[in-house]
Amino acid sequence: MTTTPLSGAARQPTIKEVAALAGVSPMTVSRTLAGGKNVRPDVQDRVFEAVHALGYHRNENARSIRPGQASGLVGVAITNLGNPYYGNFALGVEEIAFQFGRRIVLGNTGEDVVRERQLIADFIGRQVEGLIVVPSGGDDAHLQRESLRDTPLVLASRTVPGVTADAVVLDDIGGAYRGTSTLLDAGHTRVAYLGNVTSVFTGQRRFEGYQRALADRGIPLDPELVRRGQQDAETASAAMRALLDLAEPPTAIFSANNRNSIGALQAIAARLRQDPDAMRPSIVSFDDFELAELMPVPVTVVDHDPRELGRQAAHLLFTRLLETPDAPAHEIEMPTQLRVARA
Amino acid sequence: MTTTPLSGAARQPTIKEVAALAGVSPMTVSRTLAGGKNVRPDVQDRVFEAVHALGYHRNENARSIRPGQASGLVGVAITNLGNPYYGNFALGVEEIAFQFGRRIVLGNTGEDVVRERQLIADFIGRQVEGLIVVPSGGDDAHLQRESLRDTPLVLASRTVPGVTADAVVLDDIGGAYRGTSTLLDAGHTRVAYLGNVTSVFTGQRRFEGYQRALADRGIPLDPELVRRGQQDAETASAAMRALLDLAEPPTAIFSANNRNSIGALQAIAARLRQDPDAMRPSIVSFDDFELAELMPVPVTVVDHDPRELGRQAAHLLFTRLLETPDAPAHEIEMPTQLRVARA
Repeated sequence: MTTTPLSGAARQPTIKEVAALAGVSPMTVSRTLAGGKNVRPDVQDRVFEAVHALGYHRNENARSIRPGQASGLVGVAITNLGNPYYGNFALGVEEIAFQFGRRIVLGNTGEDVVRERQLIADFIGRQVEGLIVVPSGGDDAHLQRESLRDTPLVLASRTVPGVTADAVVLDDIGGAYRGTSTLLDAGHTRVAYLGNVTSVFTGQRRFEGYQRALADRGIPLDPELVRRGQQDAETASAAMRALLDLAEPPTAIFSANNRNSIGALQAIAARLRQDPDAMRPSIVSFDDFELAELMPVPVTVVDHDPRELGRQAAHLLFTRLLETPDAPAHEIEMPTQLRVARA
Repeated sequence: MTTTPLSGAARQPTIKEVAALAGVSPMTVSRTLAGGKNVRPDVQDRVFEAVHALGYHRNENARSIRPGQASGLVGVAITNLGNPYYGNFALGVEEIAFQFGRRIVLGNTGEDVVRERQLIADFIGRQVEGLIVVPSGGDDAHLQRESLRDTPLVLASRTVPGVTADAVVLDDIGGAYRGTSTLLDAGHTRVAYLGNVTSVFTGQRRFEGYQRALADRGIPLDPELVRRGQQDAETASAAMRALLDLAEPPTAIFSANNRNSIGALQAIAARLRQDPDAMRPSIVSFDDFELAELMPVPVTVVDHDPRELGRQAAHLLFTRLLETPDAPAHEIEMPTQLRVARA
């Protein structure tokens, strides 16, 4: 069998017995098992030694199904755990959840709304205390309050039209505006745009920032310089090669996310390897990425902290859960900073 | 309230009602809610529309606490979710768990064994069906069968002396041996070693591969060329700077993981920016990393697939759970491939 039946004959040790053996209070045992906040590491060690000696285990599930009791789980649905951006986002959520004695149930949607609906229905079936979702976009029925049976929802990185929920997003428009503006102010007039599919909230907002920067300087948008729909580095590389092959190629690139930036840089470097005198377009990348400072062309990043985005999303959820369950939906917009990548 | 009490007055819709509304069998509803394996997407859509229309929800927790029933959860403890290597590892685990209708409860240990013990005690309290752990190393009491109350355990990437469990690891020794050998066979005689703390299983094994490659060629180990204990890119950069400042610096580097490789490359690039004629040591990196092909010095990677490592770990767990619960512990060693990074 995979789990030990609760109705097993063996009598379960009590938290009092664990506390007595560890020489601490039952509250200290609880706090240690709930994450150890404000419990000294050496005391935590004593508690765990007693827990192991007695074979004591809280039963979270048993607690969770008493009416009104909490499961201690937070459901987290993200679009691509393989992208370091979302790995750090999940790390930030987990860090705060851990401080509140909660655990995260994590699912990857791969930008697939059907998978997202499956995950959320499953999370609610598990009575998660709340949901933190990076929405795939598209259909939103499963994110409506009635579908969620009033389970608190925090949208992260992207919001969904028609869905009222707490949300933490980046200053996508402002970041893209400033990023594009630095290229225009440096004298570039043919600045290309590389971004993800138009259905994605961040894709729309970052494209809007790019458009506004051009418009404010009276530079017409050249459709041939706009390449949207690249979700990974491979497709971004192909889009960049097409731009380099234009009769009048761009002298600079605004890239709306790190997948597009990495693909574009791979294509540019491959071209430079064939022809060291080939064009070296400057790049502004929304999202930082490792080794940006070692690229063969100048890179400026529109920087932000995905781990902090995760922390903020978790704080919104626990504020809703523990403090102001009936407050109106609250949206946080996190700032971005322009940073020139230098070794 | 955060969760809807099961004893709520409202009658819960049944799976039969959902099936009738969707025009499918109750089994198809179950399969869809369990991950949708072998269910056509359009049929899954109909099922979810009916689920939402009726407000139907499985109660996973209620199922899980019936004696002998499974929670449908797999506890996953990894050391650093911020490292893309582990993000992809978790993605592979989640992918297979999803296929089996399970969800993963994910915790980050930050290489802290106290945190690891807290997580595992908590996971067991939640009656996870199994555990997949990248162990921090050090104390192992919490990984012993009795502490786990017979919850199946799979160790990933690293094993723990004295702990008998299914495990999937990389061919660390062979990969490091071949990686170091390519540098020696290219004529390098001063090949430095950059790696993580000696207590880490992979650190020990990769250092052993490095030592063996030197020994087989009668090259004495020079302690001044061995820098261990770097867990992040910042400390690895400092270690690399110290190597570059040696009276007789190394002409090549074997780096035992991607954190050390990235830190080393940042230090080398910074030095080249000050002095374009500075030494350009060749690097062999255990672990691939993005943009390796664009570095200012030659990079060869000892490549492997962290996502596949995660899939294999999950397969070991579900084989143990569903097929051969009493089989002896099984260890899988996954191969690595040398790959020269080229744009």
